[in-house]
Amino acid sequence: MKSKLTLVGAGPGDPELISVKGVNALKSADVVLYDALTHPDLLHYCSESTIKIFVGKRAGMHKYQQQQINQLIVKYALPGKHVVRLKGGDPFIFGRGREEIEYAEAFGIETAVVPGISSINLPGYYGIPLTIRGINESFWVITATTSAGTLSNDLKLAARSNATVVLFMGLKKLNEIVRLYKSADKETLPVAVISRGSLPDGNLLIGTVTDIETLVKEKKPLTPALIVLGETVGVHPEFYTEAETLRDELLENYE
Amino acid sequence: MKSKLTLVGAGPGDPELISVKGVNALKSADVVLYDALTHPDLLHYCSESTIKIFVGKRAGMHKYQQQQINQLIVKYALPGKHVVRLKGGDPFIFGRGREEIEYAEAFGIETAVVPGISSINLPGYYGIPLTIRGINESFWVITATTSAGTLSNDLKLAARSNATVVLFMGLKKLNEIVRLYKSADKETLPVAVISRGSLPDGNLLIGTVTDIETLVKEKKPLTPALIVLGETVGVHPEFYTEAETLRDELLENYE
Repeated sequence: MKSKLTLVGAGPGDPELISVKGVNALKSADVVLYDALTHPDLLHYCSESTIKIFVGKRAGMHKYQQQQINQLIVKYALPGKHVVRLKGGDPFIFGRGREEIEYAEAFGIETAVVPGISSINLPGYYGIPLTIRGINESFWVITATTSAGTLSNDLKLAARSNATVVLFMGLKKLNEIVRLYKSADKETLPVAVISRGSLPDGNLLIGTVTDIETLVKEKKPLTPALIVLGETVGVHPEFYTEAETLRDELLENYE
Repeated sequence: MKSKLTLVGAGPGDPELISVKGVNALKSADVVLYDALTHPDLLHYCSESTIKIFVGKRAGMHKYQQQQINQLIVKYALPGKHVVRLKGGDPFIFGRGREEIEYAEAFGIETAVVPGISSINLPGYYGIPLTIRGINESFWVITATTSAGTLSNDLKLAARSNATVVLFMGLKKLNEIVRLYKSADKETLPVAVISRGSLPDGNLLIGTVTDIETLVKEKKPLTPALIVLGETVGVHPEFYTEAETLRDELLENYE
């Protein structure tokens, strides 16, 4: 048996959003180390003999440190086992996948990566495009809170750009974010808060820079939550009031 | 039978990178409209009776206009069929998925979206993280060429930011891009060119702002190609020379 680590992106919540390749990796796993943000149904793809270890954060339980996870990977893989590291979203999009890969490779363990559908794909899932031809040409994905706990400096530049801005871990900093956008004269900019990804309790809030704080206080969206700021959010039906006009135009063009 | 349109992201080339949900949509499709960037093997998930229509661009063949695709969707779905629109990558990340959804909904057709792994996930697949804690907190995804054919203005701001920049459709504008980064004093910034996604002929070139043009002229990467510019590209083994030191450190910490 060959020592192997496969990093698998579990996708953004809905267990059917894992890739076929990810399913195949789980089927051949001797050991699975899984995160809190991965759906429990995914473990059903493993065989009964697969060792399944929860290494995520959960209320009242010990949280594994990154270094401990790295050591677990090596401990199980070195004797010739296939370790699958199942991570929410995509292992390389704010997923710290590189640290685990590098650690394992330093021990001569073969590694592979199976990408996953990321939370970045969720705005589309909820009917919000990140770019629209003629409106903007880019989107900027930022982890709102730096490792030092402060608001990312990138956001200052982003608030002044035309990019649709997608923020990870921004809910606790919403007050600062709103202040920043107001100082960039963007009071009316549409904002969406997508909480709990594509899980059954997933939820979408739509507002503007001016009213999003009130909305969040009222509706109390659960974490993890993604904040999306940009003109393209404005095409969501909850925002869009010209639907009738559009429909007439379309019908006119249809032969 | 109910009229339905499901937009499915086929992923970035490798047919195993489609989601389980995408496979299930293909299995239940009466009609599939598919793009050039989707892997032909994916059509094997459909039943024999499924009508399969190629609507992509291919040398020497008629290219469907967006309006024609919209009309095909409605034509097939209206009599109560399930139409699957299979698109490369993710339907909402530069995929113009919204236009098809809105058109169908204007005719009262039920719609659904199955996100796909996007080309944005490819840097990770090739061992290049888009963010590294302590180095940067964001990545900026830009379609280099605007609908008017010019270089996106966002790139000017991006070249001066700390964001890892991911460029779609940038290869033909490489000369302009390099000039822009040089004018931002980023001659030594690491650059990667990822061509042909996760297909068997997928390929990675690694260089810097200074030498990437020469490299591209020599190696002639195929399209579609993604350009990634940022410090995080520098951790790729082809760039990274401190691997030995890192290994020693890791072994020291391992008990």
